[in-house]
Amino acid sequence: MREKMGRLRRTHMCGDLRTSQIDEKVVLMGWVQRERNLGSLIFVDLRDTTGICQIVFDSTVSEEIFKKAEKVRSEYVLAVEGIVRKRESINKDIPTGEIEVLAKELKVLDESETPPIYIKDDDNVAENMRLKYRYLDLRKPSMQNRLKMRHKAAKVVRDFLDENNFVEIETPMLTKPTPEGARDYLVPSRVNSGRFYALPQSPQLMKQLLMVSGMDRYYQIVKCFRDEDLRANRQPEFTQIDIEMSFVDVDDVIEMNERMLYRVFKELKGIEIELPIQRMTYKEAMERFGIDKPDLRFGFELVDITDIVKDSQFKVFSGTIANGGHVRGINVKGYGDGLSRKDINGLEDYVKTFGAKGLAWLKVTEEGITSPIAKFLSEEELNNILDRMDGDKGDLLLFIADKPKVVFDSLGNLRNVVAKRLNIIDNTEMKLVWITEFPLFEYDEEEGRYVAKHHPFTHPMEEDIDLLETEPEKVRAKAYDIVINGDEMGGGSIRISDPELQKRMFSALGFTEEEAWNKFGFLLEAFKYGTPPHGGIAYGFDRLIMLLTNSSNIRDVIAFPKTQSATCLLTGAPSEVTEDQLKEIHIKLDLE
Amino acid sequence: MREKMGRLRRTHMCGDLRTSQIDEKVVLMGWVQRERNLGSLIFVDLRDTTGICQIVFDSTVSEEIFKKAEKVRSEYVLAVEGIVRKRESINKDIPTGEIEVLAKELKVLDESETPPIYIKDDDNVAENMRLKYRYLDLRKPSMQNRLKMRHKAAKVVRDFLDENNFVEIETPMLTKPTPEGARDYLVPSRVNSGRFYALPQSPQLMKQLLMVSGMDRYYQIVKCFRDEDLRANRQPEFTQIDIEMSFVDVDDVIEMNERMLYRVFKELKGIEIELPIQRMTYKEAMERFGIDKPDLRFGFELVDITDIVKDSQFKVFSGTIANGGHVRGINVKGYGDGLSRKDINGLEDYVKTFGAKGLAWLKVTEEGITSPIAKFLSEEELNNILDRMDGDKGDLLLFIADKPKVVFDSLGNLRNVVAKRLNIIDNTEMKLVWITEFPLFEYDEEEGRYVAKHHPFTHPMEEDIDLLETEPEKVRAKAYDIVINGDEMGGGSIRISDPELQKRMFSALGFTEEEAWNKFGFLLEAFKYGTPPHGGIAYGFDRLIMLLTNSSNIRDVIAFPKTQSATCLLTGAPSEVTEDQLKEIHIKLDLE
Repeated sequence: MREKMGRLRRTHMCGDLRTSQIDEKVVLMGWVQRERNLGSLIFVDLRDTTGICQIVFDSTVSEEIFKKAEKVRSEYVLAVEGIVRKRESINKDIPTGEIEVLAKELKVLDESETPPIYIKDDDNVAENMRLKYRYLDLRKPSMQNRLKMRHKAAKVVRDFLDENNFVEIETPMLTKPTPEGARDYLVPSRVNSGRFYALPQSPQLMKQLLMVSGMDRYYQIVKCFRDEDLRANRQPEFTQIDIEMSFVDVDDVIEMNERMLYRVFKELKGIEIELPIQRMTYKEAMERFGIDKPDLRFGFELVDITDIVKDSQFKVFSGTIANGGHVRGINVKGYGDGLSRKDINGLEDYVKTFGAKGLAWLKVTEEGITSPIAKFLSEEELNNILDRMDGDKGDLLLFIADKPKVVFDSLGNLRNVVAKRLNIIDNTEMKLVWITEFPLFEYDEEEGRYVAKHHPFTHPMEEDIDLLETEPEKVRAKAYDIVINGDEMGGGSIRISDPELQKRMFSALGFTEEEAWNKFGFLLEAFKYGTPPHGGIAYGFDRLIMLLTNSSNIRDVIAFPKTQSATCLLTGAPSEVTEDQLKEIHIKLDLE
Repeated sequence: MREKMGRLRRTHMCGDLRTSQIDEKVVLMGWVQRERNLGSLIFVDLRDTTGICQIVFDSTVSEEIFKKAEKVRSEYVLAVEGIVRKRESINKDIPTGEIEVLAKELKVLDESETPPIYIKDDDNVAENMRLKYRYLDLRKPSMQNRLKMRHKAAKVVRDFLDENNFVEIETPMLTKPTPEGARDYLVPSRVNSGRFYALPQSPQLMKQLLMVSGMDRYYQIVKCFRDEDLRANRQPEFTQIDIEMSFVDVDDVIEMNERMLYRVFKELKGIEIELPIQRMTYKEAMERFGIDKPDLRFGFELVDITDIVKDSQFKVFSGTIANGGHVRGINVKGYGDGLSRKDINGLEDYVKTFGAKGLAWLKVTEEGITSPIAKFLSEEELNNILDRMDGDKGDLLLFIADKPKVVFDSLGNLRNVVAKRLNIIDNTEMKLVWITEFPLFEYDEEEGRYVAKHHPFTHPMEEDIDLLETEPEKVRAKAYDIVINGDEMGGGSIRISDPELQKRMFSALGFTEEEAWNKFGFLLEAFKYGTPPHGGIAYGFDRLIMLLTNSSNIRDVIAFPKTQSATCLLTGAPSEVTEDQLKEIHIKLDLE
């Protein structure tokens, strides 16, 4: 039985009714969360996007409506007209718990089969079921709240940027395939046979062109695409807050973004972050945290003990150092008892994924030092280590001896894992830090050349420009990342606007002039006609929403996400198409 | 010579300075619009996105700066520090015309080659040059203002919808190929070999799923894609304002949208449109205007004279009628003298493009009737025609005799062309009308079956549901278009939420249950679990911006548009890719 709304029009949302509406006639519409039939009374919890309201059907009020209500089951869609009244037994768990609605009219707008997943937040159903029945999963209040937070975050960002004279400008989705960077999603052209568009990895070149065009301040909340193998928390399509400004240097971009971040946290979380946000050079971040996105909510900073153990009898340390390696450690200060030997063995397995050969450790207990390596170290070495690392009773010291990269990777990630394992992180705290002065280049072993760490238009720091030709590895960039609680939320740079400098940059990257022109010709052409100094930033919007909603799974902040094999379990995308469709776009399959 | 900004930071925008800033020290940055060297004084018009400000370099103030200024040419990028002072000769044409800035410091931030197009609004350069050098074209104030209006329009729409509890939800760009409608852009999947995503033609199915999910009110300003041959004012990618609401019928959707349109016109154009907006059924629109998107800014309505001339000696009329045709005309009231015989011949050529065999006409002049067909008509027929069509001195009557479709197409479009030719349309006037009660189906000659005029989920009008099986051509839909000044700005419908009705709809479209399930299975599955009544609308955002900026070319309201052959003259997209790239995505070229 399906009925029409007829004359009924919703007057209130389910979650909005309070005692102040008592005696009012209201019309609610929504889904049946649950129903209980007590014989002469039926109670229905009616749910809409704002919450739940209790509806009472009383057989003494209307036999006809009561009979209809008897047939109602979970997830039926109802329209109810009734009178708000005080509840007999107050439910303090929900905001509408002091009232209920005595039904005078009922329309069953739709029925429902038994849903394959429960509509409640703590339903522990497998994620593939949640994705297949996403429309049911999205009925859960937690999921609706995540999407609403996403909406609000976009609104706050847009309001702020609008107030600051930024213009949102849409850049194309059908763009030119890019010669550098990640793999493009390609789109065959029907009209231009044999040619392809690419979906944008970012609007980087277009936003720089908008600066050349004098648009002055640009932003866009925009979909970007990368056809990379998906790790956890990656999606083939993702959303960026993309920003670019003219007539600016590093401080100007950072200052504007700090005000924006202040607004975001203030309006969405009620948190007033401290301005200016702390800055840390890439070098300092690596030395202290082993990683360029340090989580500053806890200590356990890296300590270099290379000099202390370089002549040690313990060959694992001294031998590594002799081969150009380092020995560094972290002090799990005050939480030594929180990690058992089994835990430490697990941590050792973890650091091996970063290439470490092992994890040395040392516990300071009431009874003295417990450590499998203590016996190889002299008392002086032990004392110096404890001294340097502030080792005291209750502490656990963890060491890696290896090539610098392995040491940093291992300890940088180990820090985070240990803090999570110990459950000492306050998730309501927000620790923001700008990481600055990134290296301009990184060496690509595979290609046997330097590649741009950020992108080839990143401006070197003025004082390092003359190293471009001689010691490119030492050149630092006018680049900055905003790191929040150990996650990189965004990053950007000042761009090169001087064609001469751009040429030197391409040359350092090993491009001939012709290659550079083939790859980026239209941008270089544009730069001939008066380019303002400019720079910007791009935020990972999905990650920001994860942070704001305290979600650990990127798929929880996207309405219709894809799996790690880039499929949509709901619609079945991607799917097969017909030969005719392929013929029209001048391609055929090339399967193995 | 290129200099750094150094300590200089912009204090004002060029277009913002007024006499109230006189004696202030300011820093401006921008492009040289023009420069004039008067020997001991150099005047530079400096341009940024807000406007132009006159800068004076005085050799007696600083010889060094003056020498630098002598080298400055058009489109050089400057940073200037100076003192605002009153101008000697006031320029009333620009808002900053009462002041100028006496330069104390100058940095030449970038030079420019002579630009290939002029940076001024009335530059009549060929469009392909404008598109190739888009970054220069976008320096023109008119283009910048269009993009700013686009930004503002999106902002006003988002503000309104946010206030009304709509949630902006991003739907996927990598979707499942659609079985119905226009041609998809396809994206080969690398991970799922032999399978393809499609770029969305609209988020129609996803927004309906969001209603099933209880999100209640959804919107999105979103890119959509259709791989169709491009006519003027079509682009392969275009932007929609996409809206969907739950627990609504036609009037609810219309009422919400009227309030939104009111805000748009009020805030962006200062026009208060009258609410409620006039409504007109599809049938009435066709009878009166021959077209379902009538321009109501002028008259010239269609008049049926079939009954008057059905027995006429004039066989062109009576013979057509005998074969089931109509004769209808329009009266170009009061503007008969505005169209010469040559003009009328031109109009005849125009209506032939709609299949008309000719255009009969009749002028009422001081000397009586001038008409090549008058001699074939009886005096009674002539008088009846003049009477019916209100023909009077100064009028020109134009007639089409043909099959109804040809008559409507010809006269409906002719009306618009005549009004434009006569230049009687007031472009500041906004005439809005809802067209309602569209036919649910239209007959597809090619496929030999009825197809959905809107889409297969459009709800039929309640009173016509029982005609679905018997006389589908008579079934009207709960569909509505908003037409402004003769352009369809948006359209939508109430959707079917009853699976039984949906089955009857598919059956009327000639789909077996299996076919329907193959095409739309995931939506039909979703509809099993409690679907609210829902409906929505989608606006062509590009068209709306054309209206708001009085632009006739869609490419003028898009930052980086494509040509009619779907290429980007700026970047060269689409372009060739390597064999390796194709191999990775499991396709090869299939060229003729």
